[in-house]
Amino acid sequence: MSKLDDVGFLGFDVFGTVVDWRSGVARAAESFLRRHQIDIDPLEFADQWRSLYQPSMDRVRSGQRPFVTLDVLNKENLETVLLKHSVDYGRIAEAELAQLNKAWEQLDPWPDSVAGLGRLKRKYSIGPLSNGHIAGMLNLSKFAQLPWDVIVGAEVAQSYKPQPQTYLKSAQTVGLPPERVGMVAAHNSDLAAARVSGLKTIFVRRPTEHGPDQASDLTAEQDWDVVAESMTEAADALGC
Amino acid sequence: MSKLDDVGFLGFDVFGTVVDWRSGVARAAESFLRRHQIDIDPLEFADQWRSLYQPSMDRVRSGQRPFVTLDVLNKENLETVLLKHSVDYGRIAEAELAQLNKAWEQLDPWPDSVAGLGRLKRKYSIGPLSNGHIAGMLNLSKFAQLPWDVIVGAEVAQSYKPQPQTYLKSAQTVGLPPERVGMVAAHNSDLAAARVSGLKTIFVRRPTEHGPDQASDLTAEQDWDVVAESMTEAADALGC
Repeated sequence: MSKLDDVGFLGFDVFGTVVDWRSGVARAAESFLRRHQIDIDPLEFADQWRSLYQPSMDRVRSGQRPFVTLDVLNKENLETVLLKHSVDYGRIAEAELAQLNKAWEQLDPWPDSVAGLGRLKRKYSIGPLSNGHIAGMLNLSKFAQLPWDVIVGAEVAQSYKPQPQTYLKSAQTVGLPPERVGMVAAHNSDLAAARVSGLKTIFVRRPTEHGPDQASDLTAEQDWDVVAESMTEAADALGC
Repeated sequence: MSKLDDVGFLGFDVFGTVVDWRSGVARAAESFLRRHQIDIDPLEFADQWRSLYQPSMDRVRSGQRPFVTLDVLNKENLETVLLKHSVDYGRIAEAELAQLNKAWEQLDPWPDSVAGLGRLKRKYSIGPLSNGHIAGMLNLSKFAQLPWDVIVGAEVAQSYKPQPQTYLKSAQTVGLPPERVGMVAAHNSDLAAARVSGLKTIFVRRPTEHGPDQASDLTAEQDWDVVAESMTEAADALGC
């Protein structure tokens, strides 16, 4: 008997853990950047856009602004990045900006994600426990063929990870105590917060999420309940 | 082009439309009734329990009490039914009552439901737009193999159908305007309310939901966008 045998629900970090946001956002941005003559490598544009992700959520976490969903933050951050490149985004059609913002809903899964999730789904209920919003997670699941049973996370909890209520309210929403929920993530900080709230922890290493020079999350920084190199290896470890 | 081609999400009534609550609740109640020597046909017990469903939600709809999830109402209604049969439910182990209350999460789909949903899921995002709570809908989906993409409805909206906000907040949560959401239900009143809120309407006739003597919802009472005899017939009509 593993200490994970009593788990009923696996909640997944999605951006970076299940899907490759960097190459997907770069792909979506490429023609946009060319069309507007913005001279930047699309991958670097993706990195710059993403770099505003945590600071923008921090303003919600700290109570400086009420909870808004991630698509709202992503859109604001897009405008900030464009301004940084001296682009007057007000002159770009709103529909075009909205379309680019949808890049976050059209990301490829890592090669092992769909197979791994399919196996995990047979034993556990599975769903995003992500900072993404419900509609975005839904659209992404259709694009990337992610077989979720339910979508919880930031919008359900009206708070952003790593705030404890994001984990605790998600567990409550699926009807389980925290210790019967497993958090699956490629980020040590996410797992550390999940563990403090009583969840089980499954680390899936994604050493190229941030590109070939990634410096963070290359190793498990605590003795997580499971440490795996892929979603299929996590399925092996969990007996699926 | 059908006027449903622009629909992106189908929201389903579940109890009665997708699953057969009456036989499932009766099955779960049978041994309980025998064990406690409660002399009533299990199907009639299911009917009596269910008869308290709408009145209990009415107290939430009217604002007499704050929103509570359906499992809470079902549990209170179970105690009410037991009292009616002069059973002192306080003398029954809490775990046993909780187990019986779980009957609502262990119901068989109608024979055409799983096949129909599987076909509809290829063209649309699908999910419960039910008065059930998220954990209950999740557990039921695992029991009955219902391939939902997402779960919306009462808990997401913190209100019970047919209140407009249940439909409107569910549409908003999946990121679509009401006219791009289709409501699938076996109940004319549900569809009437959905239509008032701007949703498209798909009637699936379930003439034995309430048993062989059912008197309600035997026919479509308005010109719903689709009228079908089964979920697979609905899939046919929607070009899936």
